[in-house]
Amino acid sequence: MNTELIYLDHAAATPLDRRVLMAMQPYFSDEFYNPSSPYAPAVAVRRVYESAKHLIASQIGAKPGEIIITAGATESINLAFNDIDGHIIVPSAEHHSVLNCAKKLDATTVSVDKYGMVSADFIKAAIRPNTQLISVALANNELGTIQPLRDIAQVIKAERETRLLNDNKTPIYFHSDASQGVGQIDINVARLGVDMLTMNAGKIYGPKQVGLLWVASHVRLSPQIVGGGQERGIRSGTENVAGVVGFSRALELVNDHRKYESERLAKLRDSLQMVLVNTFDKAVVSGHPKHRLAGHLHISFPGIDGERLVFILENRGIMVATGSACAANKGTRSHVLTAIGLSDELSDGSIRITLGHLSTPENIKRAGEIMIEEIKREYKRVNK
Amino acid sequence: MNTELIYLDHAAATPLDRRVLMAMQPYFSDEFYNPSSPYAPAVAVRRVYESAKHLIASQIGAKPGEIIITAGATESINLAFNDIDGHIIVPSAEHHSVLNCAKKLDATTVSVDKYGMVSADFIKAAIRPNTQLISVALANNELGTIQPLRDIAQVIKAERETRLLNDNKTPIYFHSDASQGVGQIDINVARLGVDMLTMNAGKIYGPKQVGLLWVASHVRLSPQIVGGGQERGIRSGTENVAGVVGFSRALELVNDHRKYESERLAKLRDSLQMVLVNTFDKAVVSGHPKHRLAGHLHISFPGIDGERLVFILENRGIMVATGSACAANKGTRSHVLTAIGLSDELSDGSIRITLGHLSTPENIKRAGEIMIEEIKREYKRVNK
Repeated sequence: MNTELIYLDHAAATPLDRRVLMAMQPYFSDEFYNPSSPYAPAVAVRRVYESAKHLIASQIGAKPGEIIITAGATESINLAFNDIDGHIIVPSAEHHSVLNCAKKLDATTVSVDKYGMVSADFIKAAIRPNTQLISVALANNELGTIQPLRDIAQVIKAERETRLLNDNKTPIYFHSDASQGVGQIDINVARLGVDMLTMNAGKIYGPKQVGLLWVASHVRLSPQIVGGGQERGIRSGTENVAGVVGFSRALELVNDHRKYESERLAKLRDSLQMVLVNTFDKAVVSGHPKHRLAGHLHISFPGIDGERLVFILENRGIMVATGSACAANKGTRSHVLTAIGLSDELSDGSIRITLGHLSTPENIKRAGEIMIEEIKREYKRVNK
Repeated sequence: MNTELIYLDHAAATPLDRRVLMAMQPYFSDEFYNPSSPYAPAVAVRRVYESAKHLIASQIGAKPGEIIITAGATESINLAFNDIDGHIIVPSAEHHSVLNCAKKLDATTVSVDKYGMVSADFIKAAIRPNTQLISVALANNELGTIQPLRDIAQVIKAERETRLLNDNKTPIYFHSDASQGVGQIDINVARLGVDMLTMNAGKIYGPKQVGLLWVASHVRLSPQIVGGGQERGIRSGTENVAGVVGFSRALELVNDHRKYESERLAKLRDSLQMVLVNTFDKAVVSGHPKHRLAGHLHISFPGIDGERLVFILENRGIMVATGSACAANKGTRSHVLTAIGLSDELSDGSIRITLGHLSTPENIKRAGEIMIEEIKREYKRVNK
């Protein structure tokens, strides 16, 4: 390819920020010690590790002791579900990690509206006396729709009070997968009203296979991976000091620039959306018009083959997705689009565009021009 | 500290080899794509990832499809135990990761001899018709004793034949944790006769929180962590491409230099052992005199406080351990030393010295001199 590459799939993966890599560097080959070793250089590394967890905790309004470091969001989600044996509630448009955890349990799947939004009332209606867990992502990874976590938290709070009155001792927890949205939304566990929160370094310009589960102190949780007793016995394995230092630096960086960056991305995304919608009057934008992540643009072109379009755009140097990477890889229709009731024609003509650090006014403008050119050509081809 | 540091705790952690870091570098910020994404740069990253797994597989005589990448040895061990619900057998001197997995099951703990060696006959005697798993480390992490895996494999093979004759359909698997010993022992899964093998990049100068479970194709295994379906559905989570590239490079490097390096380390270790044993006639070396990892020297000085000695040596710039880092951190007496029947006095006066890449003839000579000086001083103090 001779063309300059334009990366528009930040929801699938983000490049490691050079400043993050720089922060990690000392802990690869120099300060490589096992944080559990007794000698001073290892104790120093332990302190660095704990400070990094401290910093992460402070960024989300949590206590450091409540943070369990994991190998990414998928493990965190599995850990959040680990102790559950009763009824659970998940929305139909959740990520496969959540849906596959739910499969093993007595689960009620609540439907979402046409924007992919979860209704607190639907959650309320689905709660049973033995409901133990409700898991709702902070934002949908395909549509960018931001979920009303605080409203759902209110419902759960009310249920807790009912249980107290009824002497029902079954605990009910609220977990949120915040893999998408960190760095664009203010994450404060108390304000969100959750009991457990999953975060992923690999989606915020941090290292891959590094994540966390924040667990409020009242939550009962037993380990999924046992061994040397690291992470207060909840998650064993020699600590990835470089990874956690990188995670904390990445979180700090995205939070420092959160307001500026989300405004910048929303502006760029809106400009791209406008030119596409203005050019193709049958194009349909999915995801909530207002409560949507700043970088997300899910758009469908009826009559066009989305997968073919991804391939055509790739030939022009533009990287977009049809859906989440792990699902798209299997070549099946997106369960998220089915969940929002999108017609097959629109589903099949969908692409997911996600902006981020690599997006600039220039490359978004250029991407818009190329997309218009190629989609027009496709429409000409199919309408022959 | 003004003194040059002498690191003698390679069994606890190894520095990331600079060549490994160099191999990983492109996949942090440049080729950062999600390997499941459809566009060419991501497909190229997928190929790199699969090639790295291929290379790892070929190094251990396995097929690439049999390798499940995990976040390190602890997760691999937990995964190996994941589907087991019947009887299992583990030796008493195993690492806590194995013992803690065993705790949740109907487990027979077989004793080890005074060298920490497991007897195939003891395993044979412990096998029941419903035994599903036998897990024996390749080498003991505290003593360095190399286990007779092939003899145990023969016992298991015979049991399989008996079951076939008796129409007993219960599968019996042999798992080995090879966290210690890779790079010093030739690892070939067929020759070892195991059905599952755990390996850890962080102990062979590779990245931390990267490991694998090799699983023979006949083994039934269900996922512990579900989600996007990565690693053939057995272990979900966006792949750590840099980590796996680093793992494969690290394995290649230690294997390339295996013969030379183990001879070099054995020579250095023997020289250190000799000066210590010659100077302190009551010193006791544990671990098998012949079947022992080249870098391991477990030595006890009766009457001396091992933990105090670690601290004293640290002040002189020498880093050694009293036992495995995660256990030592808890300040309890080593279960391994109890298992080999070492007296409390010897246990309490033990240190574990493990040599590796950072060991040189000069710093081992120097370490010996300092140790002699300090241990003599300690004996003077306690014998006053």
